[in-house]
Amino acid sequence: MQICPPALPGDVQLDEQGRLRHFLDIQGLPRALLTDILDTADSFRGIGDAQVKKVPLLRGRTVVNLFFENSTRTRATFELAAKRLSADVLNLDIGTSSSSKGETLRDTLFNLEAMQADAFVVRHSDSGAAHFIASQVTPHVAIINAGDGRHAHPTQAMLDMLTIRRHKGEFSNLKVAIVGDILHSRVARSQVHALKTLGAGEVRLVAPLTLLPSQVDAMGCRVFTNLRQGLKDVDVVIMLRLQKERMDGALLPSEGEFYRYYGLTRETLAYARPDAVVMHPGPMNRGVEIESAVADGPQSLIMDQVTNGIAVRMAVLSMAVSGQTQKGAA
Amino acid sequence: MQICPPALPGDVQLDEQGRLRHFLDIQGLPRALLTDILDTADSFRGIGDAQVKKVPLLRGRTVVNLFFENSTRTRATFELAAKRLSADVLNLDIGTSSSSKGETLRDTLFNLEAMQADAFVVRHSDSGAAHFIASQVTPHVAIINAGDGRHAHPTQAMLDMLTIRRHKGEFSNLKVAIVGDILHSRVARSQVHALKTLGAGEVRLVAPLTLLPSQVDAMGCRVFTNLRQGLKDVDVVIMLRLQKERMDGALLPSEGEFYRYYGLTRETLAYARPDAVVMHPGPMNRGVEIESAVADGPQSLIMDQVTNGIAVRMAVLSMAVSGQTQKGAA
Amino acid sequence: MQICPPALPGDVQLDEQGRLRHFLDIQGLPRALLTDILDTADSFRGIGDAQVKKVPLLRGRTVVNLFFENSTRTRATFELAAKRLSADVLNLDIGTSSSSKGETLRDTLFNLEAMQADAFVVRHSDSGAAHFIASQVTPHVAIINAGDGRHAHPTQAMLDMLTIRRHKGEFSNLKVAIVGDILHSRVARSQVHALKTLGAGEVRLVAPLTLLPSQVDAMGCRVFTNLRQGLKDVDVVIMLRLQKERMDGALLPSEGEFYRYYGLTRETLAYARPDAVVMHPGPMNRGVEIESAVADGPQSLIMDQVTNGIAVRMAVLSMAVSGQTQKGAA
Repeated sequence: MQICPPALPGDVQLDEQGRLRHFLDIQGLPRALLTDILDTADSFRGIGDAQVKKVPLLRGRTVVNLFFENSTRTRATFELAAKRLSADVLNLDIGTSSSSKGETLRDTLFNLEAMQADAFVVRHSDSGAAHFIASQVTPHVAIINAGDGRHAHPTQAMLDMLTIRRHKGEFSNLKVAIVGDILHSRVARSQVHALKTLGAGEVRLVAPLTLLPSQVDAMGCRVFTNLRQGLKDVDVVIMLRLQKERMDGALLPSEGEFYRYYGLTRETLAYARPDAVVMHPGPMNRGVEIESAVADGPQSLIMDQVTNGIAVRMAVLSMAVSGQTQKGAA
Repeated sequence: MQICPPALPGDVQLDEQGRLRHFLDIQGLPRALLTDILDTADSFRGIGDAQVKKVPLLRGRTVVNLFFENSTRTRATFELAAKRLSADVLNLDIGTSSSSKGETLRDTLFNLEAMQADAFVVRHSDSGAAHFIASQVTPHVAIINAGDGRHAHPTQAMLDMLTIRRHKGEFSNLKVAIVGDILHSRVARSQVHALKTLGAGEVRLVAPLTLLPSQVDAMGCRVFTNLRQGLKDVDVVIMLRLQKERMDGALLPSEGEFYRYYGLTRETLAYARPDAVVMHPGPMNRGVEIESAVADGPQSLIMDQVTNGIAVRMAVLSMAVSGQTQKGAA
Repeated sequence: MQICPPALPGDVQLDEQGRLRHFLDIQGLPRALLTDILDTADSFRGIGDAQVKKVPLLRGRTVVNLFFENSTRTRATFELAAKRLSADVLNLDIGTSSSSKGETLRDTLFNLEAMQADAFVVRHSDSGAAHFIASQVTPHVAIINAGDGRHAHPTQAMLDMLTIRRHKGEFSNLKVAIVGDILHSRVARSQVHALKTLGAGEVRLVAPLTLLPSQVDAMGCRVFTNLRQGLKDVDVVIMLRLQKERMDGALLPSEGEFYRYYGLTRETLAYARPDAVVMHPGPMNRGVEIESAVADGPQSLIMDQVTNGIAVRMAVLSMAVSGQTQKGAA
């Protein structure tokens, strides 16, 4: 795993005026752009509460959900985000499509592009897949990374940032702990880049040694292998999902032992600040990385994250496709 | 099987003003509400015949089809109903979704709710699933039962009622026979409750003893094991699908024998009134429970039932989500 | 294989005023109607380039994609075409639907019709399936053939005609070569009928004897078994996909040998006119029937074909459903 791959040229994701063209990775994006995304998402937050949850920003545009890896939840939130922007949505499950007829990925992409899609939302089990696709398509097609291998999951990171900002305000005042299976987590990698770029006061990684990447020092975070020490006085606790399906037995003695040492419980949460908030990208393994009483408790923002996810995806889609931000560029 | 479970508190399905909040079961709903549904559905019947089959009642609302059990036909009619109300529709096949990642049903529901869905249309193989889900979600999400186990299928029953009323008028004048596999049928159970509530003159159940529920006496219907006697002078014949996939061999000697004793043929239909109408919820087993000449004959309303199904689903969705009825509550 | 089945009565596809009612096969359609389709499609070509890719022609109408055979690409282009006409689209994968409950195809169709669909787009592995369905439904439902067995693929042929006309103008001046697996190709059959009807100067079929239909003489084309001779001085080269999955080993020694004798390479393309254009219906087998340098070269119109495919499908859907053509009949 490369938790810190060589920096990507910023211009892959931005156009000459510095506006969002593709959304592939937090790394390489300037703080002002991340703030723009958060501001734009904030303006969309109200729409979900209204009876008519639609704005006409992407009316007549086509958004293609290109999922090489199954993910009902992420696909659903992107589909809702696109529909609430009034776009037409095409769901393509590429696992069962013409790849079975021997067509190359490049030909599949060219075909989709020729259908005059405006954006592809890409989920793929290979790290770097979204970057590869962005390098292949013509400039008028926006690529949104919906998770690629262990590399990045930038819309997840931004919805986490939106959730933190709405509840805790300025990042510079905050201590944030990311807890759990850092090694296998594209979410953690994107969160670290987002928190660093937005100027978080302190970012901590809390995990057993076997679940920390070997290059963890290069990430510029404080590393803890003891949960209680890692949570001490933090404002935000972000739990990660234990990626059971990606793990071979060697890294972890048992789920029970993981819970005992790294599970977030009422007892361990008490080490954090009394007003600390708790987050989790879902789906949760209750009783493995988090106690139900905490997941459903007053400090949990887990459901709020889902709602913010639609707003962030609306922001990213509208900015990359129409150049529409809070400040109204066109 | 509980053909007559303990009555449910009416307020699960109704709000304080007696308006529809969830649509889970016919049992417990007052006659005036069922009549409201029929009147509202009647007003939507014309829409399907128009070139523009859309009304803006649910524009900007999100309807999630949450199918834990596959049903192309029912899913399609709910999808069309929601789209003709101008809602956005999200189809989720929960069998293949994050439940495989170990998420609990409750977490899946909370997630969908956090996506700010306005209604879940639920199909599940467990009796009571829709009630359980209604007990979990917040009041602003409407749950529509699209069939749960052997318990209820209330939109099917209401489309049958609409079909009867449009062709036969007042229920109090009518003798209605429900014929076939009563034991396994959620449709039959909902039909009995609907016919009773709407004041049908006489409701008959016609089946072999092995396909009658043990508590059949409590249903307040006349029971016949002889088809010809059961059909004598009835105005409406409702055939049930023989649920072959739910039956073990012990209950039924053979399909051929079932057809000989309980199949609706031109000969057996002649026992009913000459202007009797024939209905079937589909999909039909031709030559098992019904003769093709009857299914396609002049007394058959089977295709009309499908068309009425979309109108009834539009009525239930619009009433539960927006409070919109024929009389114009809001 | 019947490459020239008995002519079908024209009135299956046309109404009494000669307007398009179903679109099943090129054969039997008059030249004026094919020209109408091309003119209407041309008027839709601009829409794909606009930001708002929608016209309200089929607003409130329902288009059902009825795919008995999987085809992501064709399904996607029909779905986009219908959505850009503002229709509601229902995707039904009939392989996994109520046919498994023992319902007959006829009952499935009647049910879909009773849902008041305006058009069925049908893909089926059996030749004649779309004709059969058209013979079953009532006149107000339009059937569009999206490929049936080895019989026809008329929208593919018309998108090819649109591509040729936009780049080469009048058909009467053109020599067109169709190269490859003619025997198994519904595309080739429809192309020949379209080119003949539109008055192409010369139509050539180029294939090994084992991949030519036995009745090839009746098709009214010049036949070549030598690629270089077949390409000599042609204006248009249409390569066919090698239908590997339909072929048993006996017809073809090996893919390598096919490429050596019938593959379109820079070297073999040089036999055609210098301004010849190259087309392929996709998905391509690169290095089997076509060299990548040709597929991606300056003479290739392969991506243009995909874009034209949406315009042609919009034309056919709007003409068959609403009677709307370039000339504005209603």
